[in-house]
Amino acid sequence: MTAPLSSSASLPVVRLLPKANARAIRHGFPWVYANEMVLDRRTKKLAPGTLARLEDDARQPMGLVSINPTSKIIARMLDQNPEAVIDQAWFEAHIARALALRSQLFDAPYYRLIHAEADGLPGVIIDRFGDTCVVQPNAAWADALLDPLCAALTAVTGITNILKNAGGRTRTLEGLDDVSAVLRGAAPDAALPVPMNGATYMADLTGGQKTGLFYDQRPNHAFAANLSKDARVLDVFSHVGGFSLAALANGATSALAVDGSAPALELAEAGAKAMGMQDKFTTRQGDAFDTLAALRGEAAQFDVVICDPPAFAPSRNALEAGLRAYEKIARLAAPLVAENGILALCSCSHAADLAQFRNASVRGIGRAGRRAIMLHTGFAGPDHPQLPQLAESGYLKSLFFRL
Amino acid sequence: MTAPLSSSASLPVVRLLPKANARAIRHGFPWVYANEMVLDRRTKKLAPGTLARLEDDARQPMGLVSINPTSKIIARMLDQNPEAVIDQAWFEAHIARALALRSQLFDAPYYRLIHAEADGLPGVIIDRFGDTCVVQPNAAWADALLDPLCAALTAVTGITNILKNAGGRTRTLEGLDDVSAVLRGAAPDAALPVPMNGATYMADLTGGQKTGLFYDQRPNHAFAANLSKDARVLDVFSHVGGFSLAALANGATSALAVDGSAPALELAEAGAKAMGMQDKFTTRQGDAFDTLAALRGEAAQFDVVICDPPAFAPSRNALEAGLRAYEKIARLAAPLVAENGILALCSCSHAADLAQFRNASVRGIGRAGRRAIMLHTGFAGPDHPQLPQLAESGYLKSLFFRL
Repeated sequence: MTAPLSSSASLPVVRLLPKANARAIRHGFPWVYANEMVLDRRTKKLAPGTLARLEDDARQPMGLVSINPTSKIIARMLDQNPEAVIDQAWFEAHIARALALRSQLFDAPYYRLIHAEADGLPGVIIDRFGDTCVVQPNAAWADALLDPLCAALTAVTGITNILKNAGGRTRTLEGLDDVSAVLRGAAPDAALPVPMNGATYMADLTGGQKTGLFYDQRPNHAFAANLSKDARVLDVFSHVGGFSLAALANGATSALAVDGSAPALELAEAGAKAMGMQDKFTTRQGDAFDTLAALRGEAAQFDVVICDPPAFAPSRNALEAGLRAYEKIARLAAPLVAENGILALCSCSHAADLAQFRNASVRGIGRAGRRAIMLHTGFAGPDHPQLPQLAESGYLKSLFFRL
Repeated sequence: MTAPLSSSASLPVVRLLPKANARAIRHGFPWVYANEMVLDRRTKKLAPGTLARLEDDARQPMGLVSINPTSKIIARMLDQNPEAVIDQAWFEAHIARALALRSQLFDAPYYRLIHAEADGLPGVIIDRFGDTCVVQPNAAWADALLDPLCAALTAVTGITNILKNAGGRTRTLEGLDDVSAVLRGAAPDAALPVPMNGATYMADLTGGQKTGLFYDQRPNHAFAANLSKDARVLDVFSHVGGFSLAALANGATSALAVDGSAPALELAEAGAKAMGMQDKFTTRQGDAFDTLAALRGEAAQFDVVICDPPAFAPSRNALEAGLRAYEKIARLAAPLVAENGILALCSCSHAADLAQFRNASVRGIGRAGRRAIMLHTGFAGPDHPQLPQLAESGYLKSLFFRL
């Protein structure tokens, strides 16, 4: 892989239209939309991921960008210094800054290390699992520069193993393949134990969902766990047991995890076993809606019920159907919550904003004939920082109700 | 004080207009607006706090309400059962339910025990400090029923002392006096030590602001403290040291508290002394804007800066001026934050919503020539529950930026 390192002389130049919001970009907005840029034949021909110098309509330099002429977001700002060189040292500076924050936040090296734009690496996700990192280079510029990126990652963190996860849905848009690989060291030959909130999660870094574990829910796991002492807990869409294992670690008397994926539930069971909690932990594999209805049929009752579904409204087109699905989840889950019990409902849908998701949830609870007060609204943890300019797009919301 | 205990036979009846949103009220919306109710001469004459039976426009009973003909919120739902009797047992049921939640949430009996509508007692605030409670009966119905309320509070919690704080601004609207009193037991003869987040706060329950301590910021204190290990901390609008003492308890190397109130700073100093941290703690009494500017003049730098001002935008009229004040705070505070440091900005303004407050804050940071990423958005803690129907009015927002 040859890294197309930038040097200002050799880079193509792209230019904003007068109507572009140059001021917002100068103030940190990280994207240029396709309708804001002069689209001459040369620009249209640039390969996705090409580095270029961005100028405003008065030909003043604005910074170094990566280009994707096939995307609505045609350019992403890499550095406001147009003379910047995107080499190992550049990556090291960004990774060191990101690492310093995570070291402040967490006692153990298990976290999202790089969260794309907010950590200065547009489209790049890096999750850390001890001495192994999983990299998702979901943008063409980063896929082309994996060599200096990996060299920087090793130099700054001292980790041994780097896995590339090419499962990101946006990679197709960027003209990238879906071939995952081992970039440095070796892939773990078994699921890795990950300590978080007092629990032990088993993460499958090569065959699992996303990078193997969802770090974003960590503070919401903790909030639910704090309410789970002596509680019977139901964890719907449990994946590897995010909410249920944290609850058991905090004194829950029992936890039932429901998920459609048998491999995920096997990992959850392995986690419970690693914690010595297997006697308190049960699983049911199956459709969540069906299982919630079945539990109702069995007159099952729980003190804490959590539903953390996949994105029902990943796009605007899916918004209405998604909100109906969230309402249905709330309506099916509420009857399973004991009097004065807790119902936590989560959404990771970009398209559904907080008020829409809350209204759908409250409607569902009401249709189940229950009343609720709201205890807490949680978002993704601080190892998932956001650019304030993009803060509206905060995807993860967790609502905690008392019924 | 004679308690006007309700019995369905003797109560006046008030009636909704056809245009009223009876459905929302049946589904838990707790208020009736003046333009939704039949305002005959008899209703207009009802004394603030009168209990009444509410009927819809078809004369179907809807519940038991308290009336205030002088308020835009003319009726507040006390019980959807129109036959309910508002006696000691009724209060006991509500307080027991609220206490069960706080006992789940907290290890020690220091919390907001009753948070008005969401805990079923409209207009009533009760903060607990060990075996002493401070009651704010900010609604006329509750002021008239203090006897059964206090009897229930003592019976359910076993506390010894009950203080009435009549400083709430809404009491005037309700036709109530501003005379605080000792209702049960005795007032503490000195500031009370309150343990929270590992710190010790000194709360003045009779002469201080509000009920003596702001419990609502507890989770935000904790978030900031977690980032304050080995940090130099600046706590602006510190009151009794909410953020600074929690930071010291979590390993901050120094903390400077700034407040306009000398008595509040004396309490903060007493708290630092009680923690054995007085050597790391300093205070400056004065105007916050002036002090921020002065610190800039001294080229002072801090690793964590928190600004937790009083409500700059308490009402819609004050919104624009309030947002300018929030922007100014951000602009003055940002230069004091060291590279990669943390800036926490808080708002307790009902009128400024989250997006407005965030935009003002980001603008101020930008005008100071700094860039920020957002780590966390926090709200009031879970001992301040909300009715989901009123969730838009969530007043407290804390934004955590990394600069």
